[in-house]
Amino acid sequence: MVATRNPLNIGAAARAMANFGFSRLRVVNPYDIAFREARSAVGAAPLLRAAEEFSTLAEAVADARLVVGTTSVGHRELQHSIRRLEYGARSIKRALTAGPVALLFGSEKFGLSNDDLSHCHWLMRIPTVSQDLSMNLGQAVALCLYELARNPKAAAVRPGKIQPASAAEIEQITLLLLDALRRSGYVNPRTAGSTEEKVRRLVHRLQIASRDAPVLLGMLRQILWKLGSP
Amino acid sequence: MVATRNPLNIGAAARAMANFGFSRLRVVNPYDIAFREARSAVGAAPLLRAAEEFSTLAEAVADARLVVGTTSVGHRELQHSIRRLEYGARSIKRALTAGPVALLFGSEKFGLSNDDLSHCHWLMRIPTVSQDLSMNLGQAVALCLYELARNPKAAAVRPGKIQPASAAEIEQITLLLLDALRRSGYVNPRTAGSTEEKVRRLVHRLQIASRDAPVLLGMLRQILWKLGSP
Repeated sequence: MVATRNPLNIGAAARAMANFGFSRLRVVNPYDIAFREARSAVGAAPLLRAAEEFSTLAEAVADARLVVGTTSVGHRELQHSIRRLEYGARSIKRALTAGPVALLFGSEKFGLSNDDLSHCHWLMRIPTVSQDLSMNLGQAVALCLYELARNPKAAAVRPGKIQPASAAEIEQITLLLLDALRRSGYVNPRTAGSTEEKVRRLVHRLQIASRDAPVLLGMLRQILWKLGSP
Repeated sequence: MVATRNPLNIGAAARAMANFGFSRLRVVNPYDIAFREARSAVGAAPLLRAAEEFSTLAEAVADARLVVGTTSVGHRELQHSIRRLEYGARSIKRALTAGPVALLFGSEKFGLSNDDLSHCHWLMRIPTVSQDLSMNLGQAVALCLYELARNPKAAAVRPGKIQPASAAEIEQITLLLLDALRRSGYVNPRTAGSTEEKVRRLVHRLQIASRDAPVLLGMLRQILWKLGSP
């Protein structure tokens, strides 16, 4: 983070790093007060205490094999190749197998300076809909780290299924519900057969979870008790 | 956003919405001061002015066909199906073709209450490495909207290539560099032939951009001028 002003943003960056498994935070020429305040941020304390402070960007990125600047673009002539976050993150992940990568974020107000950018191999931009409205710094850091940590296969992984109710449970619910409907006068005796089928199909469509079946049965029994004998 | 306390988070959420092309912000029972302060946040003003305020969650989500809660999980027994962000966002995009979807974010301190969660069809969680450390609210909103707006194909789209220097430009640079090396006494006359090949290969490996070629040639000419005649 280069010349960051707002301590909340250093704290937010550190928190996002902890959230997504990154640990090496380096700050270049921060506003002293911002950095000191940020060190006291909730949750990110260990990571911030280990943060290294540098007075020049060159020193901060000296051991990096790849230096990537982030930008909202649009407001200046850029002399660099710009990669969208989704693509750039893939390049960074490949580069990380060869050595450290530095990901630079500029100040809230001005972003990275042209001098900062001259240290970068290429730039990465977050694909916002409007390039006029820059991103909040803490959010930009979170998005970049999320994309770096993102597992593309997860988009295809279904969530753990909730155990569906067994056919026996569904049938029991259906029968109690029908009983309640009969006692309530809902069922026309002449069309009782088709009503029973309709109710059974409806109960099946509800996709009742196994753990909810006893609850529903309990509700229906209580209703039946209140309704009394037919 | 349900029971949000910090105006910065409402502002950050609105800004992320503007960044990623979302427009309908609804706040439920916010701390009045937070909401009023947030309305004055930079950049997000139009979106915040149009924000609707509700006193109950039920009213806020009344027109939604799908209600999704966000959670950091881990700290309570959840009775819902939980989907990872990458998967959940796909489900939401599909649902959006059928009608409005409500995406709920709870308060900074407590998240969504069990009562709030009871309005949800399912829950979505951001895949952080540690479930003990919850996410910053503004960052969580930004990540969810980023994933919803994310174009999976962009990961495979190469950036606009920088025009490489032509073979003629590379040859000219090679020749001037060789000239400078000869005048500097770098080239051993007995191995001059192989030196020329080595230098040519090196210059090709530099992947010089077309727009940088005239700059390099200018530098070399200046050096040659300073070196004087051989």
